[in-house]
Amino acid sequence: MDSVFSDHRALRPLLLELLNAFGEFGKAEDGGYSRLAASPEEKLARDHLCEWLRAHDFAVLVDPIGNIFGVLDLGEVDTARAFFCGSHLDSQPNGGNYDGCLGVVCACIAALFLKDKIDRDEIKPTFRYYVVVCWTGEEGARFQPSLIGSSVFSGALSLQDAWRLKDSEGVTLKDALAASNYLGADSPPSPDHYLELHIEQGPELEKSGDPVALVEACWGAEKLRVLAKGKAAHTGPTPMDERNNALLAASQLVVYAEEISRRCGETLYSSVGRMELAPNSPNTVVERAELWLEFRSPGEAALSDAVSQFKDCMSAVSGQTGCDLSIVSRESRNITCFDEASISNAECALGASNTGYLKLKTVAGHDAVRLQAICPSTLLFVPSKGGITHSPSEYTADEDVCAGFDAMAVVLASLIARPAGASAFRRST
Amino acid sequence: MDSVFSDHRALRPLLLELLNAFGEFGKAEDGGYSRLAASPEEKLARDHLCEWLRAHDFAVLVDPIGNIFGVLDLGEVDTARAFFCGSHLDSQPNGGNYDGCLGVVCACIAALFLKDKIDRDEIKPTFRYYVVVCWTGEEGARFQPSLIGSSVFSGALSLQDAWRLKDSEGVTLKDALAASNYLGADSPPSPDHYLELHIEQGPELEKSGDPVALVEACWGAEKLRVLAKGKAAHTGPTPMDERNNALLAASQLVVYAEEISRRCGETLYSSVGRMELAPNSPNTVVERAELWLEFRSPGEAALSDAVSQFKDCMSAVSGQTGCDLSIVSRESRNITCFDEASISNAECALGASNTGYLKLKTVAGHDAVRLQAICPSTLLFVPSKGGITHSPSEYTADEDVCAGFDAMAVVLASLIARPAGASAFRRST
Repeated sequence: MDSVFSDHRALRPLLLELLNAFGEFGKAEDGGYSRLAASPEEKLARDHLCEWLRAHDFAVLVDPIGNIFGVLDLGEVDTARAFFCGSHLDSQPNGGNYDGCLGVVCACIAALFLKDKIDRDEIKPTFRYYVVVCWTGEEGARFQPSLIGSSVFSGALSLQDAWRLKDSEGVTLKDALAASNYLGADSPPSPDHYLELHIEQGPELEKSGDPVALVEACWGAEKLRVLAKGKAAHTGPTPMDERNNALLAASQLVVYAEEISRRCGETLYSSVGRMELAPNSPNTVVERAELWLEFRSPGEAALSDAVSQFKDCMSAVSGQTGCDLSIVSRESRNITCFDEASISNAECALGASNTGYLKLKTVAGHDAVRLQAICPSTLLFVPSKGGITHSPSEYTADEDVCAGFDAMAVVLASLIARPAGASAFRRST
Repeated sequence: MDSVFSDHRALRPLLLELLNAFGEFGKAEDGGYSRLAASPEEKLARDHLCEWLRAHDFAVLVDPIGNIFGVLDLGEVDTARAFFCGSHLDSQPNGGNYDGCLGVVCACIAALFLKDKIDRDEIKPTFRYYVVVCWTGEEGARFQPSLIGSSVFSGALSLQDAWRLKDSEGVTLKDALAASNYLGADSPPSPDHYLELHIEQGPELEKSGDPVALVEACWGAEKLRVLAKGKAAHTGPTPMDERNNALLAASQLVVYAEEISRRCGETLYSSVGRMELAPNSPNTVVERAELWLEFRSPGEAALSDAVSQFKDCMSAVSGQTGCDLSIVSRESRNITCFDEASISNAECALGASNTGYLKLKTVAGHDAVRLQAICPSTLLFVPSKGGITHSPSEYTADEDVCAGFDAMAVVLASLIARPAGASAFRRST
């Protein structure tokens, strides 16, 4: 395999330096990172990105949901097409420095690679603009749902609804963006292709030893926010039969959701990652429990069956506990297939450069899933050690980072230099 | 029935005024009260109590755990005995204004009744001091365990351990007391009798129509803080079998605890009122769940069986979920019987004044339970509407408040004028 680093020796240290530079922001003592969406810690990372972009001749634009666009004019005057490349800088609480951040860093360094290639006349881009993008609130940690910035950009979520989202302290996303100075008013060019590199967050690449995976599709997901309303009462004198215990109801639902996924004949993952209780005081029966439940599956039928079974469980639990149970919100994410023509194109390019690769489906949602709704999109994975993510143990070795960037450069060159008509993608109206 | 209000007409408005005055502190919009232990809201209530005590010739003392003692010298020079009467001013989050507060208010107003009776030579007290007491942190809401101030005072909890208790923000009780200016250094007289009036927090008095209950005993309790440690991971790509989901483990424990109490042949209550999760983010498998579990029963064997069964459940759940489960702390509260001689004495006095009464056991712990370990103690209940408590719906009608005070005055007069040797209580050494 030829490495871009043979030709572009300066890139490797720049790539690792930039990644490490972001590793200064939101770092906790135990090695984890907390750069929650629109937080002061994420602002430091965003500011650093903007400085880097301006220092490298990008025009920096920020839209009303806080997405950052670094626009580089490639000088190709016969087109107004824009090639987007990026990911996100927000993290889970106590997560890692690779999830999202690596994709933004690689998008930045790829611009240097690209400019060099163009200057040497080794690439003739078919796009006018190369746009490094950092999407707002991908993680769904501080604000739910996930993929907020790319959802608003792609039209899946309205700006007004997104602005009104509140964190657990009641702060709206709009206010948080304004406080961090990322409530913009700019409009970037429309994307004609989107490329994203991300850590796999699973074990397949580590097993196969390949430097990169081409993601063919994303599993579907059903995300339900469920509210259990009981009655506050003293945990002492209140007779057991007179209690309406919202935590008991919520706990039964957590157990049932797990059983639904275990019993399913198809592959079905489920999880409750967040639960909020009130008053959450040891001597008071829990009055209110809110839980964030998800089902994920590569099969549509398994998902709809799961939701249907879960609703039956809710009725049963409501009957047993006397609590009022309701689904407060439901987000259904369809199974998404990435642009096939781009995948074929990338396969050819990777094959020609002797780069090994896997073809995978992603279980986790990514901004590329949202972008695929409005332009052909390509999602690449690089290995993550042990598949561990959303954890301080998240890790991708420098060698794997560089090998992944190598493969991305190959794919990028093939996509950006490809004739305009080669994509099978048709923009929906 | 004769009412003390016939003889002491000024007392009724004073009683209701003082109760309503406390109702100004920590009031929420929906009618609930939040006066968490050593909070700014509780400080307002405590300051008001101290002002009232000083205005009525009490010497105000504050001990190192923040207990307030209003000491009134009754002028009985042949003894140094002290009669304590009081309750607590802290509340649950969004609780009511009667739980604790009513007992403090009645203790204050009873002093006026007592002085009047002594001035008229209708009572010859066998105690030198009448001490109104407000105990710190009875509720176990902001700081756990409950009954903190009376536990330290009675020797069941060391001052150092109590000072080190932390709220959910990591603030120590010592620092919170210092911040609210209730970290004192005074030593009050030793109590020779303790009397507490409290709302029943159950439905029995409302059913019987009696104004007061004499509490014979307090149920035993086992309070366990249980920690489930799993592993943070992405709720998407992480295969279900590779997850160690601390919330799943915690939820199974909540369900099992309920089953243990339902299956028990004897009366056994159980509850998990508080659960803390980390990182508590929708897309991350819960790494850490901590739960506050309690069992309560009038039978010692039922309690020890319950804890033993629960430990078996912990082993099973740990095996199923791969989570590490441990009991972080355990507080065993024995069944407590209140001083029998005092109850007999009170029965005679109530009967003589034609006051109807019930004899009950209390399920909830009260400061009187702790005091009974060091002096004969008497706990009286007055009705609480629907038995509802720890809720904004907690309510005792003014008529019931006054009828309860009437009964308390009868009991107080009988206890305070009783010859010193009449109690069956022997102080343990």
